[in-house]
Parts: sequence; structure tokens; C-alpha cells
Amino acid sequence: MTSKLIHTQGVTAPLGFRAAGIAAGIKASGKPDLALVLNEGPEYSAAGVFTSNQVKAAPVLWSQQVLKTGHLRAVILNSGGANACTGHGGFQDTHKTAEELAAALSNWGTETGAGEIAVCSTGLIGDRLPMDKLIPAITEIVQEMGGGISGGTDAAHAIMTTDTVPKESAFHSEDKWNVGGMAKGAGMLAPSLATMLVVLTTDAVATPEQLDAALRKATKYTFDRLDVDGSCSTNDTVLIMANGASGVAPSQADLDAAVFTVCDDLAAQLMADAEGVTKRVRVTVTGAVSEDEALTVARAVARDSLVKTALFGSDPNWGRVLAAVGIAPVTLDPNRIAVSFNGNPVCVDSVGAPGAREVDLSGEDIDVLIELHVGEGTAMVRTTDLSHAYVEENSAYSS
Amino acid sequence: MTSKLIHTQGVTAPLGFRAAGIAAGIKASGKPDLALVLNEGPEYSAAGVFTSNQVKAAPVLWSQQVLKTGHLRAVILNSGGANACTGHGGFQDTHKTAEELAAALSNWGTETGAGEIAVCSTGLIGDRLPMDKLIPAITEIVQEMGGGISGGTDAAHAIMTTDTVPKESAFHSEDKWNVGGMAKGAGMLAPSLATMLVVLTTDAVATPEQLDAALRKATKYTFDRLDVDGSCSTNDTVLIMANGASGVAPSQADLDAAVFTVCDDLAAQLMADAEGVTKRVRVTVTGAVSEDEALTVARAVARDSLVKTALFGSDPNWGRVLAAVGIAPVTLDPNRIAVSFNGNPVCVDSVGAPGAREVDLSGEDIDVLIELHVGEGTAMVRTTDLSHAYVEENSAYSS
Repeated sequence: MTSKLIHTQGVTAPLGFRAAGIAAGIKASGKPDLALVLNEGPEYSAAGVFTSNQVKAAPVLWSQQVLKTGHLRAVILNSGGANACTGHGGFQDTHKTAEELAAALSNWGTETGAGEIAVCSTGLIGDRLPMDKLIPAITEIVQEMGGGISGGTDAAHAIMTTDTVPKESAFHSEDKWNVGGMAKGAGMLAPSLATMLVVLTTDAVATPEQLDAALRKATKYTFDRLDVDGSCSTNDTVLIMANGASGVAPSQADLDAAVFTVCDDLAAQLMADAEGVTKRVRVTVTGAVSEDEALTVARAVARDSLVKTALFGSDPNWGRVLAAVGIAPVTLDPNRIAVSFNGNPVCVDSVGAPGAREVDLSGEDIDVLIELHVGEGTAMVRTTDLSHAYVEENSAYSS
Repeated sequence: MTSKLIHTQGVTAPLGFRAAGIAAGIKASGKPDLALVLNEGPEYSAAGVFTSNQVKAAPVLWSQQVLKTGHLRAVILNSGGANACTGHGGFQDTHKTAEELAAALSNWGTETGAGEIAVCSTGLIGDRLPMDKLIPAITEIVQEMGGGISGGTDAAHAIMTTDTVPKESAFHSEDKWNVGGMAKGAGMLAPSLATMLVVLTTDAVATPEQLDAALRKATKYTFDRLDVDGSCSTNDTVLIMANGASGVAPSQADLDAAVFTVCDDLAAQLMADAEGVTKRVRVTVTGAVSEDEALTVARAVARDSLVKTALFGSDPNWGRVLAAVGIAPVTLDPNRIAVSFNGNPVCVDSVGAPGAREVDLSGEDIDVLIELHVGEGTAMVRTTDLSHAYVEENSAYSS
């Protein structure tokens, strides 16, 4: 048997994980809004990556603290409310949620402490969570936990906000160990609820340090380079748990590759479900003095409203790309910049190429390649166009 | 007589300046697209401020060179083409334009050299200018130069791109000296042609150094703080010429004040004519550790697509403001941030204030005040909402 990637399986694809998703009544719509992922052991290694926003939601502050132990038994996630900018009371709500889950799991037969539980929330910033609905639902969801794949899919549904489809991915190694994952929409893609939540599971034998290394390497080139409007949520969280249930201890390289594969697949699914998006855009910069400067230029172009509106109009307006590049605080030779759209050169040595205005960008996918000719640094950022639907999606009244 | 500001007069309001505006045929529409402002002396002091974009249009490179002398006899401006990213040939076109004007002015009786002429262009990036139409028009526009106010208004019309009205302003000092100015639309406000061109004139007696100081002080707090999408054109240019025709030598303070008054008035006119804009927004940040950090935060909020789309929807979504503040690379106390909309507190100590979701933002003007409580630094940035019309305006095919 060879390794393979499956989209219909998620966090319960690896051995020794249970999950569930239910409607707790946090969402006015009555849709599923509470998810649980439980690690049944025998090991409980864990690692996490969190938002770089200085304004962090209560669940982020809580989970960062918990993750310091490198040890996690469960993650509970809610949609329908971000619990961000809710002050001390909001933090107490998160703490209370972890304590209630710990008690429920202990009653259920799995001795657990609140300090072994991570909490994730997504939704509108600034409102307290309806604890009167959340608390009883915690006991309910523990009862609901099925084994098998379906529990993972239910969980993936329960964390959806403006997502139109759940996002799951599972990597099965030919060496008989597995990595599974689920993600919810946004990232920067549905910015009205701009939080990206990702939970990864694996039955590989791995230390917290190994998981941390694999996770940081993977997120750096996947979720971190999905950039639609430069916004960074107060709640972004990516977690990974390992239980060693497969009995297999893969090399760091194999672990890195598997975690990257699942993250890259989930990132692509986030992009594919982007709301208000009519174009999927990849901005690749080459020939910068360093990878960091290549990334700075790629982000400057990916975030430029004029470039994004032009792409929405299928307009090969390469001049806007050069103007955006010129704003980036990096080393440039303003006379040597080259740009191509979908492989068609539109600008050479900072001057328009023949036929540049006639390049057809009417398709859904647009590749923008920018060559700076000042070094060897390269970076790619995924982004989208700026459409009427984006404005519509994000101008609707929040309540 | 006391000092006064008049909107119906521009660059020809001061003594000793002539101007004209004609249709040279550069614009396919046949609308006026060539403007000329002539300083008749006796002095020819001048200063300029140019785009910080590393990719600079040919006319910017030319005018920066010319301004090193601190001496200017005339400025010729065209709309209908930016002459940016046009390579060596584009620079030769600008040089040729200055030489042709110098010859025409000399024939007309004003001995002039190409090195005494600044050139400004605005329009689509990447196309060469139709020199076959521009050259004969240069002789024509010199003949057209009238004295009096009307010439200035014709010039203000000829530099319009997506502007719907010409922008003029004139300050008449009670001490019998004057400052006049004209501006064209964009700044960041009509980003499909994102160039801001401003020409100021004064009959005060002033050295190039005095003009430079006054101009930099004024632009720093006016045009530099008009920020709709963070874009910075390849062609942005602000020029000032002084001829001393009034015989009055104002103090630096008086000169600074007069130049600021005209720049501030023109900046307000640019904002008022912003296309695709339904809200005029002022983002004020107080309590930062420095003015620079206050400005960094104000720009981060003013450029945030989520904040701007929420304002378009008249949504008092203060959570997005806090999320945007949190992204800014500045000193913050994440628990002490306060936000108010039009004077209504919506967030105190980073937590929602009672009634925050009910604040009425349906009006055209929105004041966002952000108090960081970490220092004394303050800054204000003018911006706009992100509307359907903005997307429409900027997604239309460039040709």
C-alpha cells in the first residue's frame, strides 16, 4: 500500500481520536456550533501556532497557556461567537468551558484536568458567549462522541461560519501511521468572520518538540501565505495532537512532509471556498535579495486593492503591479522588473511587453509572476480578487 | 481687508502667473488634457515633493532633476497618460516636451531653457504618450495663455482624470500677498488613476529653501494623510513656485500657514470628490507612545478592508477596529484600548460599551477615535469606506 490523501476523512482518521459536533444554540440559526476532538492516548503530545495579533481572544490566551505543557487531551471549539474583546469575564467563560469539559470527560471515564484542554472560538468580536447554552451542551457533546470517521465530519461541520462546505483532509502513510485535520473557512477568505481554526491529529509517535517543528514549518508555507486582505484575526489557531497509537515513530522529515501535505491541502480547500471571490490568484516573486523580501513584495501585491480590483475585471493591468511592487520597502532595481500573467510576459525591464493589454485573464485562476533581478530570493502568496461579493459579504450588519 | 480663502480661484490668483488648459487629443474622449502654468517673475523660486514609490514615472525623474536648481519658470501637465514604466523612450518624450515648451516660450518672448520646466503626467501606466499630438499642442497652449483667473480654471480642468470637478483654492493675505493652487482628483481617491498632481503659486518673496520648508510641512499633514487604499502612485507630484511679484516677504511662519491653508483646502476637495465613496472617514489615534506610532495605527485602521466595508454598511463593528489596531507593529496595551464612533464610546478598556451595536453611522461623515493609553502621541488620517462603486470604478478594463 502506498501513501494517500483522502478529503472525506479528518481528525478521526488516525487511530485513537474521537470527535463530535452538535448544535448548542450559540448560533441564532440553530446550526451546529460546538465541536470536540478527544485524544484517547496512549500519548498526549501537542503543539500549537496562534495569531500574531496583539489583541488576542480569551480562548487564544487560554490555549497558549495550556500548550506550554506540550500536552493536550482534548480541544473544544465553538462557532457563533469569537469571545474576543470580552475582558476578564470572557476569559473566565473560557476557563469555565475547559473546567466543565474536564468534569464531563472525567465522569465519562477519562480522568482529565482543565489544564489539558484547549479552547477555540470563532464568530463576532466583542460579545460574551451564552454560557447558559454552552455549559449543558458540553455534557451533551461528550455523550455524542462517536468513534469512527463520522464524528470528525460532524466536528468539521460544527466549526463552520461563513464556510459553505466542511474542510477535512487525511494522510495515510504507507508505513501505517496517519495524519488527519479539519479547518474552518475564513483565514482571510471570509473576513467578516476572519478566523481560521485548524485542528490536526496523528497516531504517530512524536514528541511535542517534533510536532512543534513540523507544525511551524508547515504553517509558514501554507496558512501563513494565504493572504486576501492582510487582516489577521484575534482568534487564529492551529493545533496538532499526537497519541502514538500507531506505534510508529516516523522520522522528523517524514512527519514534516505529512503535516505539510495535510496543511497544504486544507489551505487549498480554504481558498476554494473563499466567499466573494471570483479569481484564485497566486503571486510568485523571484529574484529578490532574500526570501523575506520576496515575501514582502508578494504580500504588497497580494494586498493591493488596485491590483485586486483589476483582476476582478480580468484586466491585465500590469502597471498597477509595478506600482504595488514599488511601494514595498525592499531592494529593487526599478528598471529591471519583469511581470507575467499566466505565463504571458506583460512587462520586461519595467516596460510593457507587446500584446500585454490583450492577455486573457477571464479564467478563474491567475498566476502572477514577478522577477526582480536583484538576487535569488523567492516566495509565493495565495490571494483572491476584490469583488462586489466581497464588499457585500463584509458590509452586512454584524448582528 | 482681512485674509480670505476663495475656491473659485487657483494658480492665477497670485500676481505674475499665467495659465491655460486645452484639448491636445491625448484623451480619446477629446476632453481637455494639457495644462500650462507660467511664472512671469521677477523671481523664479520653486520647490517640489514627489512620490515615495521606487517605481517613478519619467516626468517625476525629470522634474526632480530640474527642481535641484530651486528654480522654475513653468510647469506643463498632461492627463490621458502617466508616461510611467515607459523606459528610456518615455524619458526622452518628457525631455522633448520640456524642450518644445522652452522653444515655444522663447518664441513667445520669454527666454526659457528646458531645465527651467517641470513636467507632470497622469493616466494609465505603461503606455507611451502620443507625441505627434502633444508637440503641436505645446505651441498652441502657449498662444492660449491668458492672464486673469480664467486661465487657471482652464488648467485645473485640463488635469482632471476621473475627477468630476476641478479643484482650485486661493489664499489672499491681508498683507497683500497671495497663494493659489490647483489639484487633480485622485490622490488615493480615484485609484484607477491614482495620481495626485498639485501646483501651487505665490507672489510672495520667498527663497527655494523657504518654499521647500513650507511645502514639506504642509504636505506632511494634508496630502500625506489622505489614505484610501495605501496605494502610492508612480507620478504623485506637488510643486510650488514663487515670483515675489507682490513685493512682500512674509515670515516663514506666515508662509507656512498660508501654504498649509491652501493644501488643506485642496486635500478636503480631493476627499469630497472621491469616487465610489459613500462615507468620509477621519481616523484619529491618541495616546500612542509617539506621533509616528499613532500614524502607523491610524493608517492600519484606515487601510483595513474589514473596517472599510463595515463602514460602507454603516455597521458600528468596533471589533474590526480593535483587530486592525492589534496588527499594527506598535507599543500597545491590548486591555486598555478605547474606541468611539462620532463621539459615542463603543469600546472601553478593549471591551464593548453598552449600546455599541446601536450607534447610528448612517450619515456621510464618520469620526473614529482610538485612544491607546500608552503615551501622548497623536495623529489623524482621512480615509473613505470600501464600496461597490469603488470596486466598479477600479475593475473596469483599463483601455
